[in-house]
Amino acid sequence: MKRGFASDNNAGVHPAIFEAMIAANDGHVVGYGGDPITAESISIFKNEFGQDTDVYFVFNGTGANVLGLSTLTNSFNSIVCADTAHIQVDECGAPEKFTGCKLLPVKSEKGKISPDRIAEYLHGFDFEHHAQPGVVSISQATELGTLYGVDEIKSIAELVHSHGMYLHMDGARIANAAVALDLPFRAFTKDAGVDVLSFGGTKNGMMMGEAVLFFNSDLSKNTKYLRKQSMQLFSKMRFVSAQFLPYFKDELWKKNASHANKMALLLEQEVLKVDGITLTQKTEANGVFAIVPPDIIPKLQEKYFFYVWDESRSEVRWMTSFDTTEEDIYDFVSILKSLL
Amino acid sequence: MKRGFASDNNAGVHPAIFEAMIAANDGHVVGYGGDPITAESISIFKNEFGQDTDVYFVFNGTGANVLGLSTLTNSFNSIVCADTAHIQVDECGAPEKFTGCKLLPVKSEKGKISPDRIAEYLHGFDFEHHAQPGVVSISQATELGTLYGVDEIKSIAELVHSHGMYLHMDGARIANAAVALDLPFRAFTKDAGVDVLSFGGTKNGMMMGEAVLFFNSDLSKNTKYLRKQSMQLFSKMRFVSAQFLPYFKDELWKKNASHANKMALLLEQEVLKVDGITLTQKTEANGVFAIVPPDIIPKLQEKYFFYVWDESRSEVRWMTSFDTTEEDIYDFVSILKSLL
Amino acid sequence: MKRGFASDNNAGVHPAIFEAMIAANDGHVVGYGGDPITAESISIFKNEFGQDTDVYFVFNGTGANVLGLSTLTNSFNSIVCADTAHIQVDECGAPEKFTGCKLLPVKSEKGKISPDRIAEYLHGFDFEHHAQPGVVSISQATELGTLYGVDEIKSIAELVHSHGMYLHMDGARIANAAVALDLPFRAFTKDAGVDVLSFGGTKNGMMMGEAVLFFNSDLSKNTKYLRKQSMQLFSKMRFVSAQFLPYFKDELWKKNASHANKMALLLEQEVLKVDGITLTQKTEANGVFAIVPPDIIPKLQEKYFFYVWDESRSEVRWMTSFDTTEEDIYDFVSILKSLL
Amino acid sequence: MKRGFASDNNAGVHPAIFEAMIAANDGHVVGYGGDPITAESISIFKNEFGQDTDVYFVFNGTGANVLGLSTLTNSFNSIVCADTAHIQVDECGAPEKFTGCKLLPVKSEKGKISPDRIAEYLHGFDFEHHAQPGVVSISQATELGTLYGVDEIKSIAELVHSHGMYLHMDGARIANAAVALDLPFRAFTKDAGVDVLSFGGTKNGMMMGEAVLFFNSDLSKNTKYLRKQSMQLFSKMRFVSAQFLPYFKDELWKKNASHANKMALLLEQEVLKVDGITLTQKTEANGVFAIVPPDIIPKLQEKYFFYVWDESRSEVRWMTSFDTTEEDIYDFVSILKSLL
Repeated sequence: MKRGFASDNNAGVHPAIFEAMIAANDGHVVGYGGDPITAESISIFKNEFGQDTDVYFVFNGTGANVLGLSTLTNSFNSIVCADTAHIQVDECGAPEKFTGCKLLPVKSEKGKISPDRIAEYLHGFDFEHHAQPGVVSISQATELGTLYGVDEIKSIAELVHSHGMYLHMDGARIANAAVALDLPFRAFTKDAGVDVLSFGGTKNGMMMGEAVLFFNSDLSKNTKYLRKQSMQLFSKMRFVSAQFLPYFKDELWKKNASHANKMALLLEQEVLKVDGITLTQKTEANGVFAIVPPDIIPKLQEKYFFYVWDESRSEVRWMTSFDTTEEDIYDFVSILKSLL
Repeated sequence: MKRGFASDNNAGVHPAIFEAMIAANDGHVVGYGGDPITAESISIFKNEFGQDTDVYFVFNGTGANVLGLSTLTNSFNSIVCADTAHIQVDECGAPEKFTGCKLLPVKSEKGKISPDRIAEYLHGFDFEHHAQPGVVSISQATELGTLYGVDEIKSIAELVHSHGMYLHMDGARIANAAVALDLPFRAFTKDAGVDVLSFGGTKNGMMMGEAVLFFNSDLSKNTKYLRKQSMQLFSKMRFVSAQFLPYFKDELWKKNASHANKMALLLEQEVLKVDGITLTQKTEANGVFAIVPPDIIPKLQEKYFFYVWDESRSEVRWMTSFDTTEEDIYDFVSILKSLL
Repeated sequence: MKRGFASDNNAGVHPAIFEAMIAANDGHVVGYGGDPITAESISIFKNEFGQDTDVYFVFNGTGANVLGLSTLTNSFNSIVCADTAHIQVDECGAPEKFTGCKLLPVKSEKGKISPDRIAEYLHGFDFEHHAQPGVVSISQATELGTLYGVDEIKSIAELVHSHGMYLHMDGARIANAAVALDLPFRAFTKDAGVDVLSFGGTKNGMMMGEAVLFFNSDLSKNTKYLRKQSMQLFSKMRFVSAQFLPYFKDELWKKNASHANKMALLLEQEVLKVDGITLTQKTEANGVFAIVPPDIIPKLQEKYFFYVWDESRSEVRWMTSFDTTEEDIYDFVSILKSLL
Repeated sequence: MKRGFASDNNAGVHPAIFEAMIAANDGHVVGYGGDPITAESISIFKNEFGQDTDVYFVFNGTGANVLGLSTLTNSFNSIVCADTAHIQVDECGAPEKFTGCKLLPVKSEKGKISPDRIAEYLHGFDFEHHAQPGVVSISQATELGTLYGVDEIKSIAELVHSHGMYLHMDGARIANAAVALDLPFRAFTKDAGVDVLSFGGTKNGMMMGEAVLFFNSDLSKNTKYLRKQSMQLFSKMRFVSAQFLPYFKDELWKKNASHANKMALLLEQEVLKVDGITLTQKTEANGVFAIVPPDIIPKLQEKYFFYVWDESRSEVRWMTSFDTTEEDIYDFVSILKSLL
């Protein structure tokens, strides 16, 4: 079926990932994560993020976010996040339902929230009428394809920790962020003050590759029960954990994400040459956001499927993925031109 | 890694299932189930169970049970089930947490609950102090490897429906049941009065193949939201739905389950010849339950891993699976004999 | 103990209310609302609001709001409200915890939300990733002592109903609103399109007098179970319902609220004469909001206790109540003057 | 209205309680418990139970139980209780809904559960598939009017604590228990190993007098938030806390409960003289349980209302209360005789 720009999860699975899954399909192993492949995969994460990292594989990004947040909170806490955050906009209320917490959406700029804006919500501590601020959650890369710099993350972490709260990062597109920042994962997560990370691989060539990482194992003493109770415990777990072997050992994460980002930059560059299209965000990861005349959108979608992001201003989102080709970009832009 | 008798989910994935997953890995498709493979897979289920069947693919058995039950209930309902039911014993309270309902465990015999026993819990209707009985849930095959006959299911369904309640079936091992009963799936589910079915494939050679079937689409008008909110919506859904293509089209479900059941009967037959071992259940599906002297259990587990079912009476559970071989059985029984 | 301006719930109980409670204390009656006093009280509400009104007495305002909202929603719904709403700011996340819903705070002006602002949140219907907008909740009088006019309520109701949603009103200070608008209760509730009303009396001279009113009894078929499950069912219910007898029969609601409103207007009028104090809201009910130099606040609080509303801009809230006297006002303003 | 034997909560409020409430109705006080009457009342509880006792007033018994249990548990815990417990049978699933926990009903004898029976449920620790046993809850007096002796409570507490769990006591009728045992409250609660107590007064002459007591203030650091989030925080709290002043200072609890218990014993004694009536429980507190011919029950209920306890065996429950008179008993028994 034809490639498009709808979402990086409309792409399939990278062949090397599939090979690792097939290699894992050998005889019987103990279920629910008690197998050697899962052990090896956890060990890779510990090497990457530090030995005091606790690793929990789950099925999907919503599951990862909810498991991380529910571990960090009591039901009377609030969770501060961007008004564009996946947990606020795209998870059908799963965080509220499972954690019982209130989500406090902060007005974002370019998909990001600043310490100043966050600080407006950090009050009412010890006041029982007020949901107690417990966690700040940020997305890296953001839902608008932008990035937090290390200093930005550190300043949020400092603010958060000074209030006895935790910092969660939704890393559904963390590989795209790492590549764009040209930094190792831990430099802008653990080392920048993130406490819990949803580490996503599905959008970068994996099948259903998500892990929740706790950078302080004191935090996660109840996580295994919460994972089961949140329906995120995979009986044949080796088929999730095996995906991470080539992902790290062959640096597939870097190859895939570098390529997707490069394709997004190419798309940005080519679209900039087109009159009548306005880009609305700086392309920092693998998403391009643009205002396109509404009448040509359906015709363009017929050729390459994508989603309208904000109907009110005719803004669309084009996502590139590990399998996007240069030809896809040139062909798409040429159709775009011809429709204008 | 060596095969054992621990669980049918310690087995891997049948090669034909893997082939179908690889075949599904072609280019881009719309995520979250809007793809042609999912459409085809749903159509197969409708042919099997009737056109008024609504089909929702999910990640695992707990997710399937909770999604079905949450669709059928309000938080003030109670759910009546066997004291040995998976939802009561093995899901870490996920049903209570997500539905808010009370679970009422009924004393079971051979893993089954009877209309008489169920009826003891069907009272207090309209009385606001009492959690309102809303659903009865039965497992087929049961957690003890036994089966409900069609007449038994019909009589439970009649009782349940006469109280305005719903009948849910946990079909984690439904293929083993169908083969053992020598009946099409719908004969002992929809046609026998089941309203909602957790249709499981993971324990019969699939990777993570679970679906929730609603036999009356009026029931499921909210299910898609609940699936998302329960973190069970798979972005790359084609990789679940594709597994059901060979499962039904090549009758893989029947081949795998027939084999597993046959191996269980062989194991039963061979163990019956051994002095000092008592079988505690009639082997009707793919599980064999036996009382084994406690001192030899660890030694036996070293050779072929399995779980102790009830430590207090030294009862063990041996599960066969699609890949169990006759040699496994003979070798295992010979080791067993040598240890006694 | 001395009267102050902290909150209308810092006042005690009107003597006539106490008399009705004592009169109700005669012998035994069936518990949990099956008593003649509760029946009479319900009948009064039906006369006031229409015979198709269903009435549920509860313990407090948070209980009333949560019971109403949980009756109207599924867990995958969202509830749209003002960013200053009691359910958003002052209930410690009780609505999220009990309903499982997402709350969407709308930027308010003078404590009110407009159809235009609300409309920005009414999208994503039928899209399973998005919490489904289910209810809009408004407060009358608002938390800032302002009022919605009948036309404003009607236009919100029209918008809400055109999307198949429900309109909830938090009427913790509904008597103050009725008096200020000089309208019968139903004119700006049921007749204006409100579906469910939290009818509050505690802040107007009752002890714990709250009722949830459903203006269409189809909506409330499950409410009695939800009331019990939300821990809001009073065994000795006669002692809540009895309070409503003098409240309506002697128009105590009107006397108390008229007095409180009049005192607030007097306070506003007197404060307007004081240099150095800025009023931030138009006084429409029984609350006066003012910016006061921060250094004099603690000294003023020593004499007449009240709360700081917004520390960042030194804004305070002064609430009047049924027992505020003209002397209280004059004395308070004279102290205020002397401190400036 | 006529006294009956339906429930001790069908009785009204003792006049001395009402007087204390009226006395509390003096001017303004800080709401939500920041008033001097609440402070005094808390101090009385600390004197009674020890200075390290944390006291939280709530509205009703279900609220007390749920607040205590939710403080002690995570959602993945299970709560072990009698199959006749109020939390299992009479709270419409409020504990499951608010705590997310699984309730495990233990077969009771005479309303009580024994260490041996409880122990059957204390397994699966550290096993993530299994809801983790967290609390055992017992009722004193039980729902069948029977009592645990101090040694019985101690042996349950020892078992519970040896598993790192907590012991909760539902003391809805704790005064009746204290009087019957002729012991101070703390002898069979805190000093016997109870960790958290629902201290009930409503059934013993109060209006809505319930408190949750934590005997180790480390346990209750989150309780104030949970009380608010569970909708149990009373704005005019002085009207709950004031009730406890005469209750303790005038030993009203003892007078009321002694009288009710005495009346139950008189009723038992008189009924024993009647042929054709079988008592099913030993009368230890203020409840009498008897098997009565089904045909006379409705006629008897017309004269003195009461409830059928177990329809299947024509068992009824007669509750006495603080205002039951000897004449009530003699008249009732004489009617009973005449109907037989």
